[in-house]
Amino acid sequence: PLSKLSNVGTTIFSQMTQLANENEAINLSQGFPDFMPDPELLNHVDHFIKKGFNQYAPLGGMIGLKEEIARKIENSHQAVYHPDTEITVTAGGTQAIFTAIASFIKKDDEVIIFEPAYDCYEPTVELFGGIVKRFEMKAPDYEIDWTAIKKLVSEKTRMIILNNPNNPSGRILKEHDILKLTELVKGTSILILSDEVYENIVFDGKEHLSICKYPELKDRSLLIASFGKLFHVTGWKVGYCAAPKSLTDEFRKVHQFNVFCVNTPIQLALAEYMKNEEHYTHLNQFFQEKRDFLRKGLSGTSFEILDCEGTYFQAVKYNKISDKGDFDFATELTVQYKVASVPFSSFYKNKIDEKVIRLCFAKKQETLEKAIENLTKVS
Amino acid sequence: PLSKLSNVGTTIFSQMTQLANENEAINLSQGFPDFMPDPELLNHVDHFIKKGFNQYAPLGGMIGLKEEIARKIENSHQAVYHPDTEITVTAGGTQAIFTAIASFIKKDDEVIIFEPAYDCYEPTVELFGGIVKRFEMKAPDYEIDWTAIKKLVSEKTRMIILNNPNNPSGRILKEHDILKLTELVKGTSILILSDEVYENIVFDGKEHLSICKYPELKDRSLLIASFGKLFHVTGWKVGYCAAPKSLTDEFRKVHQFNVFCVNTPIQLALAEYMKNEEHYTHLNQFFQEKRDFLRKGLSGTSFEILDCEGTYFQAVKYNKISDKGDFDFATELTVQYKVASVPFSSFYKNKIDEKVIRLCFAKKQETLEKAIENLTKVS
Ligand SMILES: CSCCC(=O)C(=O)O
Ligand SMILES: CSCCC(=O)C(=O)O
Repeated sequence: PLSKLSNVGTTIFSQMTQLANENEAINLSQGFPDFMPDPELLNHVDHFIKKGFNQYAPLGGMIGLKEEIARKIENSHQAVYHPDTEITVTAGGTQAIFTAIASFIKKDDEVIIFEPAYDCYEPTVELFGGIVKRFEMKAPDYEIDWTAIKKLVSEKTRMIILNNPNNPSGRILKEHDILKLTELVKGTSILILSDEVYENIVFDGKEHLSICKYPELKDRSLLIASFGKLFHVTGWKVGYCAAPKSLTDEFRKVHQFNVFCVNTPIQLALAEYMKNEEHYTHLNQFFQEKRDFLRKGLSGTSFEILDCEGTYFQAVKYNKISDKGDFDFATELTVQYKVASVPFSSFYKNKIDEKVIRLCFAKKQETLEKAIENLTKVS
Repeated sequence: PLSKLSNVGTTIFSQMTQLANENEAINLSQGFPDFMPDPELLNHVDHFIKKGFNQYAPLGGMIGLKEEIARKIENSHQAVYHPDTEITVTAGGTQAIFTAIASFIKKDDEVIIFEPAYDCYEPTVELFGGIVKRFEMKAPDYEIDWTAIKKLVSEKTRMIILNNPNNPSGRILKEHDILKLTELVKGTSILILSDEVYENIVFDGKEHLSICKYPELKDRSLLIASFGKLFHVTGWKVGYCAAPKSLTDEFRKVHQFNVFCVNTPIQLALAEYMKNEEHYTHLNQFFQEKRDFLRKGLSGTSFEILDCEGTYFQAVKYNKISDKGDFDFATELTVQYKVASVPFSSFYKNKIDEKVIRLCFAKKQETLEKAIENLTKVS
């Protein structure tokens, strides 16, 4: 059949995980924890399943969960969303992103994307006939040149997609980025899709500047988050989209025909678990220890360790070790040194290769130790 | 913001369930069971969660579940699908339908739909710029006039959407329908999207004629099914799409960017549970008893009971009771007689009103008894 996405293959995360499994390598590629979630959360699921909550949830989500989400956002960012009309529970962050794009992007609408970028944005925009305008952030600091961004804006610009903290670079937005962004969209009807799935993983006491903190931005934004990332259950596939009512109304029109609703007992379990805020406020510290352990472990190697302000990914440059392309290098690392990573070029449409790979440190101590041991042998 | 689905509101199922709840009415509107699923299935979920299967599944689904699905299809219809490359686990039947349409429908492609139709098909086609050509099946027998269908086919016809057994009419496709359909598509590149979520709920010893039984049709078909309907867990949101590799390849390109993958522990639980075929082969008998009980209970009333060959919905005509429009009648029934139903006009784009409402009988004995008692008071 004629393909609607002729230049799309299998996502890099599946490719690298498969390669890792085939080579019995330590899998630091796809972003998921290899440790157990909190048993308390697991018990909640069983509780609600056995209590008989196994039928359709309301299309916007279970009210208890939406209320907890609203409370979390308000406590974290002093921003108010109405649980019933401004928050929609989704089948993961990815479905929220897809649905947000589906709800607003029409043929020839332009969408600004910052690369390196999570690989679902571009094909989804393309699927709805939109045109991607991309700005390439570069190693080592992945700064945004707002003058260049301004040049990308046109009358056709419909949406800007942010990912903050950024996967894979680990960069977070600063106050001056927010200021520039605010200036940029002022007086326009540009929407912002803010993918903040790593919002609770920010290091060194820095502050995560959520889009919802800024009323001029919040009003035009769809804020996306993920319980998979928050509670170490990427396989449960629950996330959400918070947006002003007028945007949520449109989002839900599509959502109801895309998935209709999301797993009921898991929503109830998450709501119950969220009642205790400590279940997510400790996350920064928890992952900072892992990040620091990995960075320290790699400091004696020839890998150049780039900054990591947030997310559970560490970017490293390997140009002192090899002049191979990053895909080939990542493959070699998996096959010969039994450590799987993700080559940064996969995050750029034009496959920009600065000899950087991404290592996921959402792993137990033992896994990180073994990975460091193997990586130390490289070069 | 400009709406991409300006003529779409909240789905009728949510509306009627909300009305039912507000009026403390017996909810025979939205299609879900009010009884417990098998405790064995529920235990499996807890088992796999506690065993630590809580991270991303492969994008096509867990191999064990895909194998069980392939086995079920082969046993039921003697049709072979390759588990790894031809079956994709989805976040419910709705997501499978949405993704199938998303994968193949482009601007100006024509799609043939048989009404009364489940309400997600049309707006989804519209969202991708497709044009719906509809044939209206009418009470009392909802026959398909294949000569009329032939007239709907053009060079632009890209897809035919079937729903067999049909929700809401309860009609199933007959051998002569399959013959006519086969003639119709022969020599064309028309795809078939076959929504068979009620495949295991067919009555009176009749046979469910799945699209996959017919090689000439299977080759061009996307077959959709739902574990929510099969195992009384509509709130778990797991279904699948079975299709030849060339179609599955395209389907998965979109699927990976829409939801990426589906709940891992629930997939494992379903796979384990499906090992025992009796867990689904008894379904016809189980629901036939409920159907017969409802029909018998209503036989003394002024409702005209239409045929019901499959699904868990009974259509009844109320023209001897009221000359109200079906939406108003369904509302009155909910408010005054405390029984919620779905008006058939919601299943027609042109709101055709033949004074028919739909009653869901996937309910425990006690619920059906109370509903019958209330409905007996009407007129
Ligand atoms: C959906 S698989 C990718 C998971 C992830 O967030 C990542 O590895 O970047
Ligand atoms: C997704 S809500 C609708 C459930 C259903 O299948 C129906 O009521 O027809």
